[in-house]
Amino acid sequence: MKQYIQTNKDRFLEELFSLLRIPSVSSKAQHRPDMQRCAERLVELLLQAGADQAEICPTEGHPVVFGSRLIDPALPTVLVYGHYDVQPVEPLELWKSDPFEPVIRDEAIYARGANDDKGQLFMHIKAFEFLCKEGKLRHNVKFIFEGEEEIGSPSLAKWASENKDRLAADIILVSDTTMISEAVPSINCGMRGLSYVEVKVTGPDKDLHSGHYGGAVANPINVLCDMISSLIDKDGRITVKGFYDDVVELSREDRDKLARAPFDLEEYKKFLDIKQVKGEAGYTTMERTGIRPCLDVNGIWGGYTGEGAKTVLPSEAHAKISMRLVPNQDSETITRLFTEHFKAIAPDYVKVEVTPHHGGNGFLIPISSPAYQAASRAMTEVYGIEPVPSRGGGSIPILADLQRILGIDPLLMGFGLERDTIHSPNESYLLKQLYAGMQAIALFYQYY
Amino acid sequence: MKQYIQTNKDRFLEELFSLLRIPSVSSKAQHRPDMQRCAERLVELLLQAGADQAEICPTEGHPVVFGSRLIDPALPTVLVYGHYDVQPVEPLELWKSDPFEPVIRDEAIYARGANDDKGQLFMHIKAFEFLCKEGKLRHNVKFIFEGEEEIGSPSLAKWASENKDRLAADIILVSDTTMISEAVPSINCGMRGLSYVEVKVTGPDKDLHSGHYGGAVANPINVLCDMISSLIDKDGRITVKGFYDDVVELSREDRDKLARAPFDLEEYKKFLDIKQVKGEAGYTTMERTGIRPCLDVNGIWGGYTGEGAKTVLPSEAHAKISMRLVPNQDSETITRLFTEHFKAIAPDYVKVEVTPHHGGNGFLIPISSPAYQAASRAMTEVYGIEPVPSRGGGSIPILADLQRILGIDPLLMGFGLERDTIHSPNESYLLKQLYAGMQAIALFYQYY
Repeated sequence: MKQYIQTNKDRFLEELFSLLRIPSVSSKAQHRPDMQRCAERLVELLLQAGADQAEICPTEGHPVVFGSRLIDPALPTVLVYGHYDVQPVEPLELWKSDPFEPVIRDEAIYARGANDDKGQLFMHIKAFEFLCKEGKLRHNVKFIFEGEEEIGSPSLAKWASENKDRLAADIILVSDTTMISEAVPSINCGMRGLSYVEVKVTGPDKDLHSGHYGGAVANPINVLCDMISSLIDKDGRITVKGFYDDVVELSREDRDKLARAPFDLEEYKKFLDIKQVKGEAGYTTMERTGIRPCLDVNGIWGGYTGEGAKTVLPSEAHAKISMRLVPNQDSETITRLFTEHFKAIAPDYVKVEVTPHHGGNGFLIPISSPAYQAASRAMTEVYGIEPVPSRGGGSIPILADLQRILGIDPLLMGFGLERDTIHSPNESYLLKQLYAGMQAIALFYQYY
Repeated sequence: MKQYIQTNKDRFLEELFSLLRIPSVSSKAQHRPDMQRCAERLVELLLQAGADQAEICPTEGHPVVFGSRLIDPALPTVLVYGHYDVQPVEPLELWKSDPFEPVIRDEAIYARGANDDKGQLFMHIKAFEFLCKEGKLRHNVKFIFEGEEEIGSPSLAKWASENKDRLAADIILVSDTTMISEAVPSINCGMRGLSYVEVKVTGPDKDLHSGHYGGAVANPINVLCDMISSLIDKDGRITVKGFYDDVVELSREDRDKLARAPFDLEEYKKFLDIKQVKGEAGYTTMERTGIRPCLDVNGIWGGYTGEGAKTVLPSEAHAKISMRLVPNQDSETITRLFTEHFKAIAPDYVKVEVTPHHGGNGFLIPISSPAYQAASRAMTEVYGIEPVPSRGGGSIPILADLQRILGIDPLLMGFGLERDTIHSPNESYLLKQLYAGMQAIALFYQYY
């Protein structure tokens, strides 16, 4: 594969850039035509790479791209999952270059989706192309690329249920996560789930002059702050009633095993430019993101937010709040518990609405599985070090769904790095990781 | 005056509308040319009304309009203060008609500035016109209209200091406030002061993926909510250290006097569509806005606030926070105390910045003054009821400054009503109040 990359590098980059130039932001209605264009481009790339067939499958939301090359029913089948939709790019002014005009700076590609997930799914197409062109393919390979991962995959589970036979496979192979660091390759063996809600607090039914009413009428922003503040106690524990009921406490032994992954707190703080970390008492930073749930306000707004000063006592205040869940916590249950709790703590001088956004459950993958072992061997060969099994803090809720619907375990070989700042301005992907990923994936097929 | 209004009604409205059509939003740099146009229009209107001279006086900010008619140095001099700048109009989508295209609906003018303060200052120009045209003027009259009231009058105090002699007068007459209700005319004998700050809380130096970092890194929105929540205690008292040090507690007798003003709590709640009021324990709703200070968040923003869901742990969170002050509290001192307090309570996992916006002190006007008595008589004649002396919750900080610089008391004859929703969408001004105000002002000159 190394030689193949060397020979085809320029073409690879041009093909990846053609995907990155399409602003496939799934959360915004205006980008619907871009979603279609992006799906069409993936079909082209799959067919060029060696797929027998590839097509755009409509759903109630953005389309699914499905392609495959089936060589022998007796051979094992690999189902590759990826997503071609990307996060919004705001705040745009913080991007050093156009998020949809990829550029290479310091040996990294900068663009929205450079890593998440266009860059990472592209590695799979190219490793597959290599195996096809060199006559080395020894597996049936199926590709499923969705366009709704960033908005919680509202359509894929239904589509997968209706296409169970077409999706039949032995393993779901995914690159949509990070490694611990360049020096410490890792394979994710678990991901957190997600519950995401939007809340609205309404005080008076109109914006008021804060001079005339201030002090006598509850200000919905102040009330929202009070309510949010009460959601996490001084020990960093979430106060939503019943929130921890289904959380499985890890044994001391398991926690020790996880603690073997290298982690430098000083470096971590330096990278983030913070003086102190903050989280649930009694757990390490890695445990806080790996094995413990959390609650974050992802967005807040209300009142006057423009230039200068406006003395308004606003009618409404809003927040987007998400909770990361650990295996065994059910996303729908948590959303219900949150909604009940948030309404229960609302003082009677405001009205409260809670609207659920997408969510999903977490999951865990057995380290003993042949697929994990093959991935481990492949990564050891590419990086010269055995990868560490890790637990990812992020969520790919659809993988928990696919696992349940198709009865297949997902394997997460992610090649992202923290420096890539996915979901943020200046998302990037190191060329080194792009090529290393292609090699490791090609080797995975060799050992699986 | 009644007859004069009847005869000139259409022209009056056309002239007022010509002012309202100019989007003189002082807080936004883009409206600088509109500020100039509005000032020019006022000069025209003053000269037409009968001023000997009227001119635009440049300042470091938006210009001041000054005009006068001096008939006899032996006669008393009235200095009319008003402001031609208006509040921003956002959220624009809540306006039923264009904020800068005045319309009459249900006997009220709807437009930004219809009341605050273009509509109210216009009454003074027309009462003055009536006295001039009918040969009834028995005072020297001076007009000062500023363009920066809504942004805290940063330039007027300096200009007034440099033009003390030109501004010499016996009383500052102002219509920029409300009456208790149509049935209960009132004259404001005191206003609250203001301290207005903008705060910024910074966590990590970049936006992060909330899945990868959530639970381990302090989220600046959550922290800002915690900090804001801590600013007011469960009794509704502001926790900023030293905040109440200079507040003068009113005597039981004074409170009883103020309590005579009619107030219907059920009607008040119904008007605002709220189930309960909220404020400092131990004080009535009218006291909470009249004689007690308060703290309100006027705006808050941070993270992702667009359509859909984005799982971001943002780098920054912001809020605009204002405090209304009562007489004897010093605005600059309170701004300093707030800044010190807010920095002191910031946990070490975030950085905090506090930027002061404008502010000003409150003041009290003696009810025994001849000007108050003349205003009271004039309003009694127009409304058939003696007006109630009241305390206004809002702030016109510049009046406290003018009082100090020029040594003249301000008299606040405001004709606004709560229903006018100044500073909010669909600001309006009842035609009835517009005309009643003109009459009362003309009578004020008769009795003063």
